[in-house]
Amino acid sequence: MKVAIKPRPIIMPCPVLVVGTYNEDGTPNIMTAAWGGVACSRPPCVTISLREATHSFGNIKRSGAFTVNIPSEKHVKQADYAGIVSGRDHNKFLDTALTHKKSEFVNAPIVMEFPYALECKLIKQIELGLHTMFIGEIMGIVADEGVIGNQNLPDIEKVRPILFGSSGSKFYYKVGNKLGDAYSIGKLTSLDE
Amino acid sequence: MKVAIKPRPIIMPCPVLVVGTYNEDGTPNIMTAAWGGVACSRPPCVTISLREATHSFGNIKRSGAFTVNIPSEKHVKQADYAGIVSGRDHNKFLDTALTHKKSEFVNAPIVMEFPYALECKLIKQIELGLHTMFIGEIMGIVADEGVIGNQNLPDIEKVRPILFGSSGSKFYYKVGNKLGDAYSIGKLTSLDE
Repeated sequence: MKVAIKPRPIIMPCPVLVVGTYNEDGTPNIMTAAWGGVACSRPPCVTISLREATHSFGNIKRSGAFTVNIPSEKHVKQADYAGIVSGRDHNKFLDTALTHKKSEFVNAPIVMEFPYALECKLIKQIELGLHTMFIGEIMGIVADEGVIGNQNLPDIEKVRPILFGSSGSKFYYKVGNKLGDAYSIGKLTSLDE
Repeated sequence: MKVAIKPRPIIMPCPVLVVGTYNEDGTPNIMTAAWGGVACSRPPCVTISLREATHSFGNIKRSGAFTVNIPSEKHVKQADYAGIVSGRDHNKFLDTALTHKKSEFVNAPIVMEFPYALECKLIKQIELGLHTMFIGEIMGIVADEGVIGNQNLPDIEKVRPILFGSSGSKFYYKVGNKLGDAYSIGKLTSLDE
């Protein structure tokens, strides 16, 4: 039976995105966000939505840039930490022992331990309410050589990204087993199998 | 070692979103999209990005509404099919044997077999290039009673949503095992464990 429930922003799965920015004094900061996704293929754009209260919000407004760093399963604690405390009063790189370098394309730091990072130039910001959506054009991508797969792209089975499981309680999940080939498993001949 | 790769819109994981709209003649249509995510908590908003060439693009522009239906693992073939063919020349509900009903809140159809659907009113559209991003405010949610968990919200372990694995080749994946509690596993005391 179908039931009506109260409107809430429930997309499944949600990604775990670690947003890199520089503070006003040049120290690097990270924060973890689950509100975001791909916005466009050409030019390649992604979105992240942040509350104005966050420290990263001001950093992006000022610098016009951010990185989107994708953590692996083994970084789940560091990614969670970056979503718990604020860059206003914590140096999250020092606290987590993560390291950084500046993007060659934009004024934002890359998390060196994570599998890959999107280097984004802020092209639009849309105020929606509690969250402002930042749209970033991807100017470069830096990846660990070891996670590169076919077509010179990061391979999800090597990256081992984390999912944010939004239900009543909040959990992180691994990526599970393969279900099938996209643009193939649903061809009409197989629909009845 | 880090390597630089060509900018591409690579977020991991990507969701599998089945977008419901009405054609001009009132027949319901679905298409599958992976470019999208949460945009705001209050008001609750999500984005989906579509190419102008798609049939759903015109439907959303005309009706100012769409649903975002979340398929379960068992619907992977139907979801894939909805991303392969166009609503211009296929009735995808008939082809997949999925059924529909009209949302009570917006002028868009709900896929009855899927675990839950977000009923969205179009509030903004942002032309970015190949894709236009549609921002929808969630006016209602319809869910299977059986997937509701804590706090009257869909539970990811009951919904069993699909991931779109964007690497060189494209695959669907299941959600895997739980890694830990969000806002908890990363507390400083556990960072060194």
